Amino acid sequence: MSTLSGFTVPKTQTACVVPAIGKEIEVRKEHPVKQASELKPGECLVKISHTGVCHTDLHAKQGDWPVKPMNPLIGGHEGVGIIVAIGENTENSPVKLGDRVGIKWMADSCLNCEFCRRGFEMNCPHVKLSGYTVDGTFSEYVVSFTNHVTPIPDELDSAGAASILCAGVTTYKGLKVSNTKVGDWIALPGAGGGLGHLAVQYAKAMGLKVIAIDTGDAKEKLVKSLGADAWVDFKTSKDIVADVKAATGGAGPHAALVTAAHQSGYTQAIQYLREGGTLVCIGMPDADIGVNGFWTVFKSIRVQGSYVGTRQDAIEALDIARAGKVKVIFEQKGLADLKDVYEDLEAGKIAGRIVLEVSKEENTGGRLGGKQVN
Amino acid sequence: MSTLSGFTVPKTQTACVVPAIGKEIEVRKEHPVKQASELKPGECLVKISHTGVCHTDLHAKQGDWPVKPMNPLIGGHEGVGIIVAIGENTENSPVKLGDRVGIKWMADSCLNCEFCRRGFEMNCPHVKLSGYTVDGTFSEYVVSFTNHVTPIPDELDSAGAASILCAGVTTYKGLKVSNTKVGDWIALPGAGGGLGHLAVQYAKAMGLKVIAIDTGDAKEKLVKSLGADAWVDFKTSKDIVADVKAATGGAGPHAALVTAAHQSGYTQAIQYLREGGTLVCIGMPDADIGVNGFWTVFKSIRVQGSYVGTRQDAIEALDIARAGKVKVIFEQKGLADLKDVYEDLEAGKIAGRIVLEVSKEENTGGRLGGKQVN
Amino acid sequence: MSTLSGFTVPKTQTACVVPAIGKEIEVRKEHPVKQASELKPGECLVKISHTGVCHTDLHAKQGDWPVKPMNPLIGGHEGVGIIVAIGENTENSPVKLGDRVGIKWMADSCLNCEFCRRGFEMNCPHVKLSGYTVDGTFSEYVVSFTNHVTPIPDELDSAGAASILCAGVTTYKGLKVSNTKVGDWIALPGAGGGLGHLAVQYAKAMGLKVIAIDTGDAKEKLVKSLGADAWVDFKTSKDIVADVKAATGGAGPHAALVTAAHQSGYTQAIQYLREGGTLVCIGMPDADIGVNGFWTVFKSIRVQGSYVGTRQDAIEALDIARAGKVKVIFEQKGLADLKDVYEDLEAGKIAGRIVLEVSKEENTGGRLGGKQVN
Amino acid sequence: MSTLSGFTVPKTQTACVVPAIGKEIEVRKEHPVKQASELKPGECLVKISHTGVCHTDLHAKQGDWPVKPMNPLIGGHEGVGIIVAIGENTENSPVKLGDRVGIKWMADSCLNCEFCRRGFEMNCPHVKLSGYTVDGTFSEYVVSFTNHVTPIPDELDSAGAASILCAGVTTYKGLKVSNTKVGDWIALPGAGGGLGHLAVQYAKAMGLKVIAIDTGDAKEKLVKSLGADAWVDFKTSKDIVADVKAATGGAGPHAALVTAAHQSGYTQAIQYLREGGTLVCIGMPDADIGVNGFWTVFKSIRVQGSYVGTRQDAIEALDIARAGKVKVIFEQKGLADLKDVYEDLEAGKIAGRIVLEVSKEENTGGRLGGKQVN
Repeated sequence: MSTLSGFTVPKTQTACVVPAIGKEIEVRKEHPVKQASELKPGECLVKISHTGVCHTDLHAKQGDWPVKPMNPLIGGHEGVGIIVAIGENTENSPVKLGDRVGIKWMADSCLNCEFCRRGFEMNCPHVKLSGYTVDGTFSEYVVSFTNHVTPIPDELDSAGAASILCAGVTTYKGLKVSNTKVGDWIALPGAGGGLGHLAVQYAKAMGLKVIAIDTGDAKEKLVKSLGADAWVDFKTSKDIVADVKAATGGAGPHAALVTAAHQSGYTQAIQYLREGGTLVCIGMPDADIGVNGFWTVFKSIRVQGSYVGTRQDAIEALDIARAGKVKVIFEQKGLADLKDVYEDLEAGKIAGRIVLEVSKEENTGGRLGGKQVN
Repeated sequence: MSTLSGFTVPKTQTACVVPAIGKEIEVRKEHPVKQASELKPGECLVKISHTGVCHTDLHAKQGDWPVKPMNPLIGGHEGVGIIVAIGENTENSPVKLGDRVGIKWMADSCLNCEFCRRGFEMNCPHVKLSGYTVDGTFSEYVVSFTNHVTPIPDELDSAGAASILCAGVTTYKGLKVSNTKVGDWIALPGAGGGLGHLAVQYAKAMGLKVIAIDTGDAKEKLVKSLGADAWVDFKTSKDIVADVKAATGGAGPHAALVTAAHQSGYTQAIQYLREGGTLVCIGMPDADIGVNGFWTVFKSIRVQGSYVGTRQDAIEALDIARAGKVKVIFEQKGLADLKDVYEDLEAGKIAGRIVLEVSKEENTGGRLGGKQVN
Repeated sequence: MSTLSGFTVPKTQTACVVPAIGKEIEVRKEHPVKQASELKPGECLVKISHTGVCHTDLHAKQGDWPVKPMNPLIGGHEGVGIIVAIGENTENSPVKLGDRVGIKWMADSCLNCEFCRRGFEMNCPHVKLSGYTVDGTFSEYVVSFTNHVTPIPDELDSAGAASILCAGVTTYKGLKVSNTKVGDWIALPGAGGGLGHLAVQYAKAMGLKVIAIDTGDAKEKLVKSLGADAWVDFKTSKDIVADVKAATGGAGPHAALVTAAHQSGYTQAIQYLREGGTLVCIGMPDADIGVNGFWTVFKSIRVQGSYVGTRQDAIEALDIARAGKVKVIFEQKGLADLKDVYEDLEAGKIAGRIVLEVSKEENTGGRLGGKQVN
Repeated sequence: MSTLSGFTVPKTQTACVVPAIGKEIEVRKEHPVKQASELKPGECLVKISHTGVCHTDLHAKQGDWPVKPMNPLIGGHEGVGIIVAIGENTENSPVKLGDRVGIKWMADSCLNCEFCRRGFEMNCPHVKLSGYTVDGTFSEYVVSFTNHVTPIPDELDSAGAASILCAGVTTYKGLKVSNTKVGDWIALPGAGGGLGHLAVQYAKAMGLKVIAIDTGDAKEKLVKSLGADAWVDFKTSKDIVADVKAATGGAGPHAALVTAAHQSGYTQAIQYLREGGTLVCIGMPDADIGVNGFWTVFKSIRVQGSYVGTRQDAIEALDIARAGKVKVIFEQKGLADLKDVYEDLEAGKIAGRIVLEVSKEENTGGRLGGKQVN
């Protein structure tokens, strides 16, 4: 057990707690902080400075997925902070006290099972999920795991890096498994949104040509400024499938990355994809996504489920941001605003990323990584 | 233009014709034969000795797929015969007069488009489909294409080789794109059927462990004799998903090759597949196959449409049969029996492969390739 | 047989001929032109406007490779021109009279052999090589093959496109097989040269980080302007291996693309490559390249020979240039200057690309593709 | 810390020690055993029953590789035994007291570095190597690491399983990266030897066609009994390259797996390989292996270094043996015979695998895995 020199772990903290499935979150001021001596081998205590809010946090609160969250629960899985304590007998730790690290959806995995050995850590049967099966980042301090926290490069500021840890990694990983190469076309429905605007940037960094699908002048302007090569407004388009194919010269895109909650996003993709193309699913509707047998076979289509990212994926996604190729556009609020944010999420009022400032940073990172818009 | 030495192409032949979509086939005795002088560059005339009958022939007759067949139509796309004439100015022909060749579903492709260049010949926009968009093998003579007919290895007998050209290639190609390696488990629903019994043998040749799913003692005996490692009877099983997972020791198979017309075959596969696993679709129901968004993503599942095979796939599938690793089990009938076969197919009475003897072979092939059961 | 409307194929032309292996080239003014009526099926006659000169042309002249060129020989395999005639019975031609097309090293392949079927056209046993086993582009007219000539996108100017057809495709293909992904480091020895400056640009288009290795301020300035992330001057460096590793933060690059004629380029690469890295060889010294057994195994290194590009590779390489991501920097001369160019090549005086203007274009292409420097 | 119930770890043991580089091994009867209380987190103590002897052990003794072994040293990296103690605070251990486990060349890796995260554990900078940088299996007890020891399937006997842990895994991994698929040809020089006879069996399990290259009637008979499809005797062959190509019908094998210490094995492989083929190197001569630049590029050859195997590779290699597809043929001796074995190895007198019985097993494994020949 060790604690950051000169630092005293407080006994209590402010934390946002979901008391039971479906209940409103409570902002608790006197929530206990796990002390350094209570940490198990491999655990570390992270003092959070910023945390993103993700649509998945709503599923964690509502408990409407087939895999159930624990309760009571502190949500949040896009956090950045400083390691202030590490448990005893933590061997081979790739991080140390004082390191600025990120906490992502996958908090820990065993590293020893078949899935971990084969590079499918996210499918580890012993996986721990931040803000879902273990407490997450909507609090001042969170217990995480030295093997899985992600070092934040110095060049990135913490607020900007936060959303890379879920929205960024998830879209980057989806693109990694999209079976595309430089010069290929990819369709990005929702390109102007929280995940989508990152997908556009990662896709451009990989040399892909992007068809952004979304609606409204503001989003059109945004995605074009991020490098989108073509734009289809799904509200004004009279035939989305035809317009997407036309944007590529007729044959359709080589891949599509779909985050949608609705079947239409998937069904359209199978129609507009080029023969031999790949539909990467990263949205997780617990519903039939409408895959047609005839066309999937006749067009040699691949439908690839892509579930978050591994330790390596997270490091790569941050490294691409460090090179200045990806910037998170976010609105910043305070931890106490989380309840309002949830309500806005439920009402469908939030399109981009929200980042909460949990505490003021002392040794802040660099300037890259994000662009605050409010 | 050239004709096989000593051979005279007759003016007429027996041919089974679908006069119009949905109409019964007619066995016509005086159907015209295209003469050698009428062949275009790249075309060849094949004297058929044997042809398999495939469930797809029923779709060709009924015209119930979104892509429509031509009419009137001679069906059939699993034929074996001898090249008796080749059109003028046929350059670079990989086959010659007198060669014994196979005719598969893909009769021709342009070899020049993006899809042909990238190895997706079956998705060529100029593709010609035997027994669907060009006349097929249910006749004594058929016009085919030198670039695409498949040389039959000497070791194989024609009757046995016939079904390799569709049922064999299709299952082999599905296994090729199943993302599996030696020692992996694969589930094969319908393992005792016409496609399934070939899938079992190709899977074993690749070093996979096979879970055969089908029903009845006869099929259980058959698939075990072909090397299946585990058996699940879908009629007597109380929980197919649980039984399939149990057969692999709990984690589920790494892949499934599904030929089913019904949604349940696909939906179950997503449930029983191992995380990171692949569902290869080779059945072509023009219907929603019931892919669930949450589980596809959460389990990192790939759904891969696999549409028939290329020239190279066909050669490889035959080569594996030549090595004695795959035998088609078939019932042999005459060309004139085709009408009855169609009726039995429509009534769901045919489980295995049917091969029609169209003409007696003079220089027959070897002994391998098939095993006649009636 | 067909000829471009309004065009008359002349009887004679200017052509640069290597009369016999090792002999000086002769600029012949009255060299015969193959007439439209003499073209075989699949052949086309191309009126050349520009042709690049490649180091390989020197091997063709000297006959010092284990595979021998024909003689007498017209060299050249980086040509751009207009199709003015097409042979009779040319089926499925992907190009038509009047099309502006490129002629690359691989002039033709059979499209039917195992290698063509599997996407290894360049290894076709029936392959024809421009300016090596068939006459090439150092003449006003050249016979080429409709299946293999490469359409030039309208946005590219002919002079700029010429060098893409060998130097561009070869480096692009090498990068395609380099087993790298966005964010990976690649070392490019000779980065400031004719192949190298294209490799830098293709690598950047793919999202790679580039370590340019070359010498001198001019080349340093050039490669940095093209996006190189790090620079090692091989003349001033005291330890190239150490400097390359340091540029990547210590672990070494994930890949190296080596065009060198000397062993040291390969031997150093195995030393500086990251474990699991790939050494792509595109240089073709008929000599031992000095691969050490222990380190290749211990570091899990892949040494990948990459030989020119296929039809599809050429189209992709041009498409990336069309998107404005790659510009050939070249010096332009006339066809009659070829003899001097050869002498300079032999003397090692030429570092960048030379493009010869063979005839004035009437309908010129766009503005992208190249940047003339003299 | 925990010890197997009813078991007392002795204070001393018999161990074979290399006292210094190049010195003869000493069989020490009173070598200390590390006690359970001395084990660090993640360490376990294994009571060895059997250990294979590998040619690499000679390099460890002689210290003639560029990477140096520790000294004094207990060699050995193909051991099987029972876990009798586990260190304190060993988290997430995939094995438990009493488990029968294997010890392979890679004793431990950090699981956290870039190489471990990407599945290149063998290239981890923190790797520990059994019998090279940590003490190995030539002793009654050895300290190993819970994350890396390999569970031995019940169906395998310990003596037979031992050689799978190095010779088996190494050849299996080499085949995994050989870029081959069912029906492809692979050349196996040294097919009748200790590594080779396993390579034949793994290759056949994967559906490859095998050209065995070795010499003598006994080896010919052996490899044919293991399924080799063709045989080339390198002593009686007048042209090995031509004979290997002829065995495949002319085009040459798709891959070769070369274990040789001499350049000729590698140089010949590049000559006989099919275009696009792969030369997998698993031998580790600290010497130039003679790769020719021209032919490597012209034939699109890949030279792939393959260094031992990961945790997952070892599990897979054993699983294939469990299925009855691979049997180690070995000669069994006692631990005290090791000195003689080394001398025979140095004299080149040992062709197959040697397994030493270190102690009598109490609860022995199954019957599969090996076949003792003396």
